[in-house]
Amino acid sequence: MCVVGAGVIGSLFAGHLAQVVDVSVLTRRRAHADALNAEGLRISGRSELTARVTATDDPDALPAFDVAIVATKATGLEQAAASLEGRFPDATIVTTLNGLGAEEIVRAHGGWPIVSGVTFMSGTKHSDTHVEYVLDTETWLGPYEETPFDRVEEIADLIARAGLAVEALPDLRPAQWSKLIFNATVNTVAALTGLPHDAHFAAEDEPTDLGHLVHDLVDEGKAVAAAAGIALHDDPWEMNVLATQRGSAHYPSMLEDVEAHRPTEIDLITGALVREAERHGVAAPLHTALYRLVKAKEESW
Amino acid sequence: MCVVGAGVIGSLFAGHLAQVVDVSVLTRRRAHADALNAEGLRISGRSELTARVTATDDPDALPAFDVAIVATKATGLEQAAASLEGRFPDATIVTTLNGLGAEEIVRAHGGWPIVSGVTFMSGTKHSDTHVEYVLDTETWLGPYEETPFDRVEEIADLIARAGLAVEALPDLRPAQWSKLIFNATVNTVAALTGLPHDAHFAAEDEPTDLGHLVHDLVDEGKAVAAAAGIALHDDPWEMNVLATQRGSAHYPSMLEDVEAHRPTEIDLITGALVREAERHGVAAPLHTALYRLVKAKEESW
Repeated sequence: MCVVGAGVIGSLFAGHLAQVVDVSVLTRRRAHADALNAEGLRISGRSELTARVTATDDPDALPAFDVAIVATKATGLEQAAASLEGRFPDATIVTTLNGLGAEEIVRAHGGWPIVSGVTFMSGTKHSDTHVEYVLDTETWLGPYEETPFDRVEEIADLIARAGLAVEALPDLRPAQWSKLIFNATVNTVAALTGLPHDAHFAAEDEPTDLGHLVHDLVDEGKAVAAAAGIALHDDPWEMNVLATQRGSAHYPSMLEDVEAHRPTEIDLITGALVREAERHGVAAPLHTALYRLVKAKEESW
Repeated sequence: MCVVGAGVIGSLFAGHLAQVVDVSVLTRRRAHADALNAEGLRISGRSELTARVTATDDPDALPAFDVAIVATKATGLEQAAASLEGRFPDATIVTTLNGLGAEEIVRAHGGWPIVSGVTFMSGTKHSDTHVEYVLDTETWLGPYEETPFDRVEEIADLIARAGLAVEALPDLRPAQWSKLIFNATVNTVAALTGLPHDAHFAAEDEPTDLGHLVHDLVDEGKAVAAAAGIALHDDPWEMNVLATQRGSAHYPSMLEDVEAHRPTEIDLITGALVREAERHGVAAPLHTALYRLVKAKEESW
C-alpha cells in the first residue's frame, strides 16, 4: 500500500498499516522522507508502535502498490493526484479528505477505481516521525462510481486488521454529507472565533450564545442535504453536542491553519456546501457569510 | 468643560477645546491624570497643538463644569456615568459613543440635559499625553429628550471655535443610525477577519468577495432602520465605499480591541441593532450571527 501525504491522518494510516502490509509513503518534502527512512514512524497515544516504511518525495521512486490512500490536505490534493498520473492503473485510490470533490480531482488525473473515505481519527503531529493518536474514531469507506463494493470491503478488512476502526458502507454520501455539514460549521466557527471545539458550540442558554449560530448553520446544511436527496448518516448537531462532551476540546484543523497563517480547506468544505446549495436552488446565507469571512481572513495575512 | 475619558476621541476634544475654554479631564488611571497635568496634552497630525488641562482620576476633585463630553469606550460608560451621579445637575452631558443606548445609561445616573453625539473623527494614541489626529471628519450633535436645540447649537459653536468640524441637527437619530449600521458592519467584519477597513470591504467581483457580505449586512441594517421609522442621514454602503477609497486603510476600534484581547463595544453596536430588529419584528440573521461570533471570540481569551 502507498500513503500519499504524511500529515496526522496519513501517518496514522501508514503507521498502523505497516504492521500488516508493506507501506510506502509519498511525502512533499525530501527531508521528511529521509527522516522516515532513517528513524521509522512512531505512533503514540491510543496505539504505541514504531513502523518501518519506505518513504520518498519522488513519485518515480515509488514502489508498485495495489492501494493508495490519499491523505493530503485539500490544498495539496491537486499536486498529489498529478504526481500519480500515468502510474499503476490497476491500483485503487482511496480519498480521505474533508469536504466534497476530492474524487473528481483524482479522477481528472487517471482512470483508477476510487474508494471514497471519511475519517474521524485525529491526532497531534509532534515531529516528522512522531504522531500522537488522540481520537481512535472510525473511518468510513464507500464505492465511488463503478468501484465494486467487495473491493471496498477488502480495503476495510485490511485497515481493520491494522488495528483501526473502519466501516464499509454501500453508499458513503450520507456519511460524507454528515461530516461535510459538521465540518463546514465547526471548522469555520472555530477559525473565526479562535475557540477550540468546546462547550460554547453547544450552549443555547442566552440569546447571544454560540450554540444558536451552530444550530442555525447545521439546519441550513441539512436543508441543502435534503434538497440534494441525501438522507444523512448522522445528525450533525448531535455529532457536535457529543464531541463537545468529550474530555478535552478538539482543535479543528481550520483553526490550526488560521493560527499558522496557512491557506485553509474552506473551498472543499464550506465552498462545496455553498455550491451544492446553489445547484439545488436552496438558500445558504449563513454558510455563504462564513465562507466570505474565512476567505477574507486568508487575505489578511 | 469637562471631558470624561481621555482615549483618542476624548483627547481630541480636550486638546482642541482647551484652546478656547477651561478644560478638565476625568481619567480612569491616576498615572494618566498625573502625566497630563505635568506635560499637558499634545495633538499632532491634522492639528498641531499642546493644551493645558486639569486632569484627575478622582470625581470629587473635578472643578465645576457647564458641559461634560463623555468620550469613554462603551465598556467604561457605566462607571463614568456613575462617577458623575449627584454632581453639577445644571450641566449638560454630551454622549459621543458608538452604537445606541449611551444616553439611557447616563440618564439612569442623573437628570442632566443630554445632548446626543456621533463623531467620525479618528486618531492614533501614541502615549497618554500625545494623540495623532488622523481623520478630521465631523461630529454631529442633536437634542436628547427635552434638551432645547439652542443648547445643542451653543455647544456646537464652541466645538467649532475650537477648530473641529461639527454640525447641530434637530434630530440626530438618522445620523446615529447611519453610523450604527456602518459600525455594526465594518467593525465586526474587521474584528473577525483581521482586515483593516480596506478595499476588500467594497469588492463584489467574485462570489466569495467580502463586499457581498458587507452589502448584505448594510441592507439588513437598513431594513431594521426602516422598520424603526428612521430615514437614514447617509447610506452606510456609500459611507463604506468612500472610506475604503481613502489613502490609508482605517483600523476599526473593534479590530484593535480584538487584537489586544480587550472586551469590545459589540453590545452597544451590533447588540443594539439586533435588539431594535427584535423590537420591530424584523429579521437580522447576519448581524445576529456576527454578534454571536464576536461574543464567542471574546470568550476565547
